[in-house]
Amino acid sequence: MAAAAPPPPPTATAELNMNLPTSYPLFTRIRLAGKPDVSAIHKMIHQMAVFERLSDQCSATEASLSATLFSNNTPFESVTVFLIEVSTTPFPSFVSHHPKFTPIHKTLNFDCPVSDPETETFKSSKTEDAIIIAGFVLFFPNYSTFLAKHGFYIEDLFVRECYRRKGLGKMLLSAVAKQAVAMGYGRVEWVVLDWNMNAIKFYEQMGANVMQEWRVCRLTGDALQGYAATSGTDDLDLI
Amino acid sequence: MAAAAPPPPPTATAELNMNLPTSYPLFTRIRLAGKPDVSAIHKMIHQMAVFERLSDQCSATEASLSATLFSNNTPFESVTVFLIEVSTTPFPSFVSHHPKFTPIHKTLNFDCPVSDPETETFKSSKTEDAIIIAGFVLFFPNYSTFLAKHGFYIEDLFVRECYRRKGLGKMLLSAVAKQAVAMGYGRVEWVVLDWNMNAIKFYEQMGANVMQEWRVCRLTGDALQGYAATSGTDDLDLI
Repeated sequence: MAAAAPPPPPTATAELNMNLPTSYPLFTRIRLAGKPDVSAIHKMIHQMAVFERLSDQCSATEASLSATLFSNNTPFESVTVFLIEVSTTPFPSFVSHHPKFTPIHKTLNFDCPVSDPETETFKSSKTEDAIIIAGFVLFFPNYSTFLAKHGFYIEDLFVRECYRRKGLGKMLLSAVAKQAVAMGYGRVEWVVLDWNMNAIKFYEQMGANVMQEWRVCRLTGDALQGYAATSGTDDLDLI
Repeated sequence: MAAAAPPPPPTATAELNMNLPTSYPLFTRIRLAGKPDVSAIHKMIHQMAVFERLSDQCSATEASLSATLFSNNTPFESVTVFLIEVSTTPFPSFVSHHPKFTPIHKTLNFDCPVSDPETETFKSSKTEDAIIIAGFVLFFPNYSTFLAKHGFYIEDLFVRECYRRKGLGKMLLSAVAKQAVAMGYGRVEWVVLDWNMNAIKFYEQMGANVMQEWRVCRLTGDALQGYAATSGTDDLDLI
């Protein structure tokens, strides 16, 4: 019957609805990660290493991450992870909030459904429902002596491949920025590869300053281990 | 009588002694800083800002530093400061060691005495003796997901002007590296200005890798404060 009848003349409301991709909602939630999430975080770290073609530098195991993450259960005072989870149905109400952080909910709408080939691997630790971990941001406090204020340093930001280009990375970054402001912190910092122009443009659009004049110095591996053997500072020349 | 007698013929030993700068010993000690040291640290931070021509960016006051430094008294778990102190006489024996750090002593010898115009300002908080604070390094833990290990990030390294070019900066950096190794940490990192070739050469001689391809991104000031006003992530476009 709908096919036989001519379509009604377009109205402003109808046209707006037709253009809005309302057909496939994706419900999202950003929450604090804990020990039960280490397995998923471990898998995402290795996916990130593959993406960055740095797999040879990634020696993290689930056990070594578990031994070093979330030990003292004091988010924001040491290494902290926000997970972004997605679901095609609304999230159940969430009652156990951390005193310093309330999970962030947002509903996105898309033209077509997201096809996720790894739903079993990335099932959320929080529920039996169809909630899937889509990405994470790992950060920890730093400190500026010039401001006499703490800030946050973002070590990793990762969104699983099938959820990219949907705003999830920006939602994770914004959640860290918002948390920094809520805690009276002065800065959020991270690093980017100088050839990654898309990322640089993205960060600048967020309001970040990509500083051209600073270089990161790193002492690691054998060069660092060499300092264990020195007795005091006897090996130092007087530069 | 010494003037009337001809000097003895030079021997290998005498010549060695004449060339060694043994006349003016400078005793040094690296120790953990605490609340009583904030006043000296504040003054050095401002001297550092003047040296870097960044005084306009330095808003730290003694009160704001005191409110944010050494609050939980757990060195190495949050912001930590090593002070390097000097004295022209040997240090008194030091009995109260931190379980994770033993002060580092070293005696340097110079051709001429160091003239310090600010001995009153930088008198050590630890004693009534003539022990002077000569510099500091401020650092805090960071974390590498690829290594699944903590490390240290050095925010500031500063030696007061009259004590420069004597090896004190290297002693402070080495103390942080040694502490990282002792704690099983994987990295020590910091940043350097790309035009500061002397510093870059110095760091590379220490075994550090000065990474050319990474850029530091910073979200601060009004750009950061803007995130406080956003309700959730409603303002985000879908990049």
